[in-house]
Amino acid sequence: LFDFVAGGADDEVTVTTNRTAFASLSLRPRMASEYMKPNLATSVVGQAISIPVLTAPCGFLRIVHPDGEAGVARAAAAEGSVSIVSAMAATSLEDVAAATPADARPWFQLYALGGIAGADQLVDRARSAGYRALVITVDTPVPGNRERDVRNAIPMPLSVNLSSAVRLGPSMLAHPRWLYRFIRDGMPTKLPNTLGLAIDGARITQEHATRLMVTDPPAWPAIERIRRRWGGPFLVKGVLTAEDARRCLDIGADGIVVSNHGGRQLDSVAATIDALPEVVDAVDGRADVLLDGGVERGTDVIKAVALGAKAVLIGRAHVWGLAVAGERGVSEVLRILRDELVRDLRLMGHPDITTIDRSAVQLRSDGPHRSNP
Amino acid sequence: LFDFVAGGADDEVTVTTNRTAFASLSLRPRMASEYMKPNLATSVVGQAISIPVLTAPCGFLRIVHPDGEAGVARAAAAEGSVSIVSAMAATSLEDVAAATPADARPWFQLYALGGIAGADQLVDRARSAGYRALVITVDTPVPGNRERDVRNAIPMPLSVNLSSAVRLGPSMLAHPRWLYRFIRDGMPTKLPNTLGLAIDGARITQEHATRLMVTDPPAWPAIERIRRRWGGPFLVKGVLTAEDARRCLDIGADGIVVSNHGGRQLDSVAATIDALPEVVDAVDGRADVLLDGGVERGTDVIKAVALGAKAVLIGRAHVWGLAVAGERGVSEVLRILRDELVRDLRLMGHPDITTIDRSAVQLRSDGPHRSNP
Amino acid sequence: LFDFVAGGADDEVTVTTNRTAFASLSLRPRMASEYMKPNLATSVVGQAISIPVLTAPCGFLRIVHPDGEAGVARAAAAEGSVSIVSAMAATSLEDVAAATPADARPWFQLYALGGIAGADQLVDRARSAGYRALVITVDTPVPGNRERDVRNAIPMPLSVNLSSAVRLGPSMLAHPRWLYRFIRDGMPTKLPNTLGLAIDGARITQEHATRLMVTDPPAWPAIERIRRRWGGPFLVKGVLTAEDARRCLDIGADGIVVSNHGGRQLDSVAATIDALPEVVDAVDGRADVLLDGGVERGTDVIKAVALGAKAVLIGRAHVWGLAVAGERGVSEVLRILRDELVRDLRLMGHPDITTIDRSAVQLRSDGPHRSNP
Amino acid sequence: LFDFVAGGADDEVTVTTNRTAFASLSLRPRMASEYMKPNLATSVVGQAISIPVLTAPCGFLRIVHPDGEAGVARAAAAEGSVSIVSAMAATSLEDVAAATPADARPWFQLYALGGIAGADQLVDRARSAGYRALVITVDTPVPGNRERDVRNAIPMPLSVNLSSAVRLGPSMLAHPRWLYRFIRDGMPTKLPNTLGLAIDGARITQEHATRLMVTDPPAWPAIERIRRRWGGPFLVKGVLTAEDARRCLDIGADGIVVSNHGGRQLDSVAATIDALPEVVDAVDGRADVLLDGGVERGTDVIKAVALGAKAVLIGRAHVWGLAVAGERGVSEVLRILRDELVRDLRLMGHPDITTIDRSAVQLRSDGPHRSNP
Repeated sequence: LFDFVAGGADDEVTVTTNRTAFASLSLRPRMASEYMKPNLATSVVGQAISIPVLTAPCGFLRIVHPDGEAGVARAAAAEGSVSIVSAMAATSLEDVAAATPADARPWFQLYALGGIAGADQLVDRARSAGYRALVITVDTPVPGNRERDVRNAIPMPLSVNLSSAVRLGPSMLAHPRWLYRFIRDGMPTKLPNTLGLAIDGARITQEHATRLMVTDPPAWPAIERIRRRWGGPFLVKGVLTAEDARRCLDIGADGIVVSNHGGRQLDSVAATIDALPEVVDAVDGRADVLLDGGVERGTDVIKAVALGAKAVLIGRAHVWGLAVAGERGVSEVLRILRDELVRDLRLMGHPDITTIDRSAVQLRSDGPHRSNP
Repeated sequence: LFDFVAGGADDEVTVTTNRTAFASLSLRPRMASEYMKPNLATSVVGQAISIPVLTAPCGFLRIVHPDGEAGVARAAAAEGSVSIVSAMAATSLEDVAAATPADARPWFQLYALGGIAGADQLVDRARSAGYRALVITVDTPVPGNRERDVRNAIPMPLSVNLSSAVRLGPSMLAHPRWLYRFIRDGMPTKLPNTLGLAIDGARITQEHATRLMVTDPPAWPAIERIRRRWGGPFLVKGVLTAEDARRCLDIGADGIVVSNHGGRQLDSVAATIDALPEVVDAVDGRADVLLDGGVERGTDVIKAVALGAKAVLIGRAHVWGLAVAGERGVSEVLRILRDELVRDLRLMGHPDITTIDRSAVQLRSDGPHRSNP
Repeated sequence: LFDFVAGGADDEVTVTTNRTAFASLSLRPRMASEYMKPNLATSVVGQAISIPVLTAPCGFLRIVHPDGEAGVARAAAAEGSVSIVSAMAATSLEDVAAATPADARPWFQLYALGGIAGADQLVDRARSAGYRALVITVDTPVPGNRERDVRNAIPMPLSVNLSSAVRLGPSMLAHPRWLYRFIRDGMPTKLPNTLGLAIDGARITQEHATRLMVTDPPAWPAIERIRRRWGGPFLVKGVLTAEDARRCLDIGADGIVVSNHGGRQLDSVAATIDALPEVVDAVDGRADVLLDGGVERGTDVIKAVALGAKAVLIGRAHVWGLAVAGERGVSEVLRILRDELVRDLRLMGHPDITTIDRSAVQLRSDGPHRSNP
Repeated sequence: LFDFVAGGADDEVTVTTNRTAFASLSLRPRMASEYMKPNLATSVVGQAISIPVLTAPCGFLRIVHPDGEAGVARAAAAEGSVSIVSAMAATSLEDVAAATPADARPWFQLYALGGIAGADQLVDRARSAGYRALVITVDTPVPGNRERDVRNAIPMPLSVNLSSAVRLGPSMLAHPRWLYRFIRDGMPTKLPNTLGLAIDGARITQEHATRLMVTDPPAWPAIERIRRRWGGPFLVKGVLTAEDARRCLDIGADGIVVSNHGGRQLDSVAATIDALPEVVDAVDGRADVLLDGGVERGTDVIKAVALGAKAVLIGRAHVWGLAVAGERGVSEVLRILRDELVRDLRLMGHPDITTIDRSAVQLRSDGPHRSNP
């Protein structure tokens, strides 16, 4: 299970560069600015958030903790963030929505997998359940080649037994950052014995039977029709080029999520922070741009915003929190990032996330941080 | 034996950069394109192949498995690929050709080693045996300095006894990628006990006695004469510069294989993917360009094609397959690459290998991917 | 305690690049110049120093050795250097000043922490105690995120017990450079048993009660007022950009310390040697520029001076010396650097630190050593 | 003793980059050229050598093997190379010269250390003893900071006892390249028990008493006078910049050795292969340029010659040979390099070392291989 969360496609080149590209970009802080209470609140596709960090859609979350998708959605709502609920959730979309307050419903994510009929059905159910935005993921016409899962013989559709699940605990030691604060707060760092038992493999299988019947994933015209059927705020997730960013604008997207699926789909594509400027330049303010992939630190968020993102998505980070302490663990991860962002904005001398711009980072002349070609 | 296959010349700088240069080149996928069944079929020097991957000529293949060169040729033919049979084969060229269907004969590779008389004799034999193209390797006026072989005291001409051969099995664990799928399919991962016994060292020695008598390897005029004697599709393998690419055009080559011999000849030459654009620019469409060296992934194939190659050659990859499961292992390696290419083309949103161009990759401004000087 | 000294913020990216950026910059020595006794003497903000190396302000130094801040100040004075005494000292500022000769008083460092009233009080006390310059640190509106301290559960305000303190000894073996000479000179390399007992945790707590009451750290106008109240030589520490360098000039600073707080505040800012040219260009001779961060070698000092610094600050280096042998250890560290500088200037063929310029280093065309943007 | 040979100054940054800079420079081989017997013969300062590799001056060679400097000189003469005998030799310069044939006398190297009177005396003795060229080393106004020697408490002047000397054997395993061929040839890889006993420490001390009395090392005017007193071919060793290259031309040097003393003097200067083009451009054919530092392979020699060097010096390489098998080991190292050069020139398709030019290497656009500034 640790490998299922941490791993990526092929040789995991992109998993690695998603992180190293952030590290090679320098921040340019300004000192001794007038004190101003740091502001993290911003908006994405017209919706207010109190922190520029959303939780990315991740499938099958109940395999790491019984709180699953509902726990993530509740934690995100409570922290002023937004949970983007995966169409691959191990909980029905209605149950996830119902777990959140009426004024803080999650967003719904639709895989390009699923066929048009399935997509229409899910769009209608999501609208009825009160989801506030629709995110269509376009980088998964087929699943990526995740060799860790092949080696571990992870079954698809996912099911899991207790003996493998409990091994996540020690593996988490490889990510001490997300653990130290839990430890300090006295949170459990061993998984509960009941983990995994809560998953009803049969139900997951049935639930997804209709969703996973792929005939052909929607292309741009079909995506535009889905947008019209949805009617509300609409984002496209999985864009890495200026060309695709322009397609998103053409079909009327309100938001574009620069994402390489956490390095889990096509390996050896650009790091998200390296692809961001090209997309931002192409969009030129006509839609909100978000970044998804490699974000672990408050400084990563600032760099993404400096290069033109309105907000970022975290993925593995909140899954680690969920695995360790369920909903409470997800809240803790968001609070860690909030604390880091507050501190980092103070240290940047620019305590308003909404006005950070490119002067906050040092672009290197050898330029992986490329402009529109 | 593991070292004989995996190793390279001197400090193996080029063995390493052949891989890292691929990793440092980013793909630029386009999303949500209209579904189209991915097409891998293309042609090289006018001959159709169903996958843009050929098996490179490798000498003495029976030392890793009794199926040897004939097994490779059968597997390649069955998979719609082409086997380029080495002049250093441990099986006679007639036997290898006879192992394949009449409409899917392999190509024959001639070392620049061998003297003119020997070359003429081999060319005539290859034509008679039905080989469909001739590849002359020009980067081996002398053997490279492979120190692993010196340390392991590999005898030349090669002979091998069982006790050293059976040690290949565990060494393969260092290349789990080629193993995991075999394991899944229930293939044997230990070499059969009979391995090595099938090799008749004396015969290899005799067989090569005439071929290896080097007086002077053919220079360009002699190569041109060989091409004329051959009469059919003709490729030159081992080119790394624009200057040599122009020589190939001058003598009428139909194809040029950008190759550094897998890092086994002159160490510290450019990675093949870095040398490719210079050759492609110089050729300017007047011949087919292939790439040989460092290819392990479907994404590597796409990058090579994006930079102008019509197809690529694999070397060590199919030898690992042969070592583990003979002909069946070679087929499996080709099928792995085919599966990856189908998946990767879908993920690229450009499901036709024949129309991929430079817009599919991100050239870095600090440019190891150099243009024609 | 080792972690408290050695560690940095977040992922310690800047701790690392502070060192690697020095290593990637090449010196250009000139040979066979006329012999001249190497001159290390220079001046900073009008004050003579016999070596272009000052000891940076470090808080709570008595936790590593009972000699603490007074020991550092005495050693610096004896070696012709200057100690910049931290407002976070574990000894009163009057006691530290009194430990030095009247003509070699230290400089006083004021954190931007502390509130205006506290700052005024400290400024007046520092003037009365004879401090010769005031350094205001502007990169600490809030403390950095030092996760080693969180994991080690370092209490704030700092207190320490013997059992943890004595563990510094073996940890020092990770920094053999600062040990080998001590060993040669027969210095103790195990900490004395009394270490840590000398620290009166309660007193530290009380001492800092007023200083640490942060309302809001001073912004530029307040800093200018502090400079006027002080009246003497005035430096701003913690500048990384041309923009802030110009602010320093605007408020009349005599000196600017390019510093990233040893990578202990905002992580992933530029290495100090990479940020230096931008600041030097902006200052254009109107103030003295110093560099603080990553300095461990005489060659580092020469590179910093070559790129426009008048002098550098060391931090961890002298703390290791203090930990091992108290005041005598600090002197030894300064002597090591003096010996290296004398040797390195001879080897540079330019034996006067005051006339080294940019021709002494090789700027790379891919340019982390950036100019004013 | 292993550390004494292998080590460098400070953090050994330059020891490392001397090698990595070679590795990052790519060769551009041309294929299928007409066969020509590879020619390694060239000339330096008008003297013929049969291989473009000289043995660099290394001090105290009898500490690694009783054959010492005389053994190196005999081996170099026998192999058609030239030994540059160090003024720090543990054998008198007359004895070393007498060990060689009259028509293959070594060159003599004078340290900038030594004072003018001592220099004059040595120059006269060297001329009388038949040395054929004089090399003055200008990068050693003071010894470098070799911390391995400090830690190992290597005494100066050097003396050694058997117990430490015999430990060189196993250490050599860290350099298997120079061992494998010895092993194949049945050479001893354990040092003889008598090693070290042959060294008469007292005599070394006395011998060097006059040489090492440094008053001031010669500057350019003194070097010019030494050149005039010598009268014969004259080289300056230790140049890294265009400025110093021009000084060498001004004083009438016949040859210039680009050298950083194997990374043993000033650390963090440029790798020799990176500094070479700047010097070659400045010299513009008016003197012979040699390269010393980091050479271990035939390909390194070709790269150096391609960038303008007439020949290279090896240092540690032949000392390893001497340590293992005395004079015979030095010959073996030279033969390994000769074999590599013959093979590499064939593989380059340019079998004449005297006509290799810059088209043989790929200069990178991010350019550590800088031109004259």
